[in-house]
Amino acid sequence: MKISITDLRQKVLTTFADKGFNEADANRIADVLLWADMSGVTPMGIAKMVGSEPVQNEKATAPVEIVRDTKLSQLINAHHTAAPLVCQQAVDVVIQKAKDHSFGLVGVNNTFCSSAALAYYVDRIAQKDLIGIALTRSAGSVAPFGSADPLFGTNPIAFAFPTNEEPIVFDMATSPMTWTGLILAKNRGEKIPEGIAIDSEGNPTTDPAEAIKGAMFPFDHSYKGSGLGMVVEIMAGPLAASAYCDYKTYDKDYGNLFMAIDPELLVDAKDFKAQCSDMAQVIKASRKQKGVDEIRLPGERARAAYKEAQKTGMVEVDEVVLKELGYL
Amino acid sequence: MKISITDLRQKVLTTFADKGFNEADANRIADVLLWADMSGVTPMGIAKMVGSEPVQNEKATAPVEIVRDTKLSQLINAHHTAAPLVCQQAVDVVIQKAKDHSFGLVGVNNTFCSSAALAYYVDRIAQKDLIGIALTRSAGSVAPFGSADPLFGTNPIAFAFPTNEEPIVFDMATSPMTWTGLILAKNRGEKIPEGIAIDSEGNPTTDPAEAIKGAMFPFDHSYKGSGLGMVVEIMAGPLAASAYCDYKTYDKDYGNLFMAIDPELLVDAKDFKAQCSDMAQVIKASRKQKGVDEIRLPGERARAAYKEAQKTGMVEVDEVVLKELGYL
Repeated sequence: MKISITDLRQKVLTTFADKGFNEADANRIADVLLWADMSGVTPMGIAKMVGSEPVQNEKATAPVEIVRDTKLSQLINAHHTAAPLVCQQAVDVVIQKAKDHSFGLVGVNNTFCSSAALAYYVDRIAQKDLIGIALTRSAGSVAPFGSADPLFGTNPIAFAFPTNEEPIVFDMATSPMTWTGLILAKNRGEKIPEGIAIDSEGNPTTDPAEAIKGAMFPFDHSYKGSGLGMVVEIMAGPLAASAYCDYKTYDKDYGNLFMAIDPELLVDAKDFKAQCSDMAQVIKASRKQKGVDEIRLPGERARAAYKEAQKTGMVEVDEVVLKELGYL
Repeated sequence: MKISITDLRQKVLTTFADKGFNEADANRIADVLLWADMSGVTPMGIAKMVGSEPVQNEKATAPVEIVRDTKLSQLINAHHTAAPLVCQQAVDVVIQKAKDHSFGLVGVNNTFCSSAALAYYVDRIAQKDLIGIALTRSAGSVAPFGSADPLFGTNPIAFAFPTNEEPIVFDMATSPMTWTGLILAKNRGEKIPEGIAIDSEGNPTTDPAEAIKGAMFPFDHSYKGSGLGMVVEIMAGPLAASAYCDYKTYDKDYGNLFMAIDPELLVDAKDFKAQCSDMAQVIKASRKQKGVDEIRLPGERARAAYKEAQKTGMVEVDEVVLKELGYL
């Protein structure tokens, strides 16, 4: 259903205040969640406030700790602080490092819930005329190529590039479905597509409950998707001092890696942005495949939804989620 | 057929000497090509010395030019110098930058032939206890999602991670086949698989000659593979001051980007390597999917082939290629 963004934001802020978050922190988390809902990426929005790991229920066991800090990098131990809050901080840091030294690399570990949409964070980086890259690993749900064990997380990776207009933002999971998608399908009693998952015995299944106990295949069912999942598992796992391949213990240690690259390291940012704009136009203006109405760039649909929401002041959210949160 | 590696190397060196390359340069190119043949990646080996762009025929129009140089980065204009030679130089530089400053980014443009196997270059970087990343863009052969025009190249991307044993190396094209694969299929009168390509009118085709005039789809036929192709097209294109989306002019300006990251930016390299080793073992030892004999890590098969070739001193190469080169 459609509701007022202002009202929704106020309700979200109140929920976080009730859970002991200060106003600034509550606002930073609301920014991440509402961005997703306004962009039409609802599983990454206030849906993160319900289910098995509600963001607002996360309680830090200690203050956020900077474990390592160099000119170019920072490693942050979140000590259970809500992931979107720590990831906002990580993005602040990675932008500053890249502004000061042309490159920034920030790892975050011990966030005990999902960071929500990586697209949001890389977009923030690219809004500062930097190339933004983000990777997240989570508890196992995807089996590497040939394996029957869910050693990799859904392991999304996102990129954003500055242009003369809005950044080009590309965000993908290396799994065929998000974890939230699996849970939703289970709760709704829906089947999942054939050929994307196995049960705990390694048999093909279309039952999301069985897939949750078993494993999904990589998004393309090949060694390529599996290799990309591994890249994320390593770079947001061991490189961020986070867990890896932890489906047996399920220690809920999400790992995040953020990277910011100043294009001026190699070229003039002005030229880079102009050429990215031009590339976007060339792609948009190319001949369409039969049956295709419009060629869309990565992130284009989400951007349009966001602008429409901004314009109308209204956002589409799941009534069930609103009810669960007591907002209806 | 199997031939002696020593003999093959000598023949390759003679060919390059005949074309005016000095001994050191000839050896550096031979290293790249023979590595691929020994690793069983034959389309990336001495096969690059035949066909439409034989490596040894590349003539530099000017000396290799360092266009921009910072502590962390270097932009190199190859001025038509043979790609494997310039890419070897780029890898030397990116390793040195990362050893000195923990991060290195090197772009190469105006190489007028393929760099051959990216796996070779990232492996070199990871052998130095650094994370290696490489991307190459080439003239258009892949249509973005929804488009019928071949705006992206086959656009491979490769990663390598140091371990306590050999590095883990992952190398993939964002196209369903390599360009060389298409050419080979055409020359052999073979069909290509259904559903991976369209002709110049946008109709599905299994004729490689028509696919060459038309376009391939991204490797997974989805927005994900298309987005990854775009990431490579941008990062090895405009970010390396190379061409992009150039299928109409086909100016043969391959662009390459190399990145080296010192894991010490975030964690102790010792721990990182040990955990990458452990992850490899966990994956290898996991339960196999039904019908799977062995779970192989990315690059594992190539590594085994390389070691076998080293041990026996013999390498398998295509007789046709040997004949074309006058080696038989």
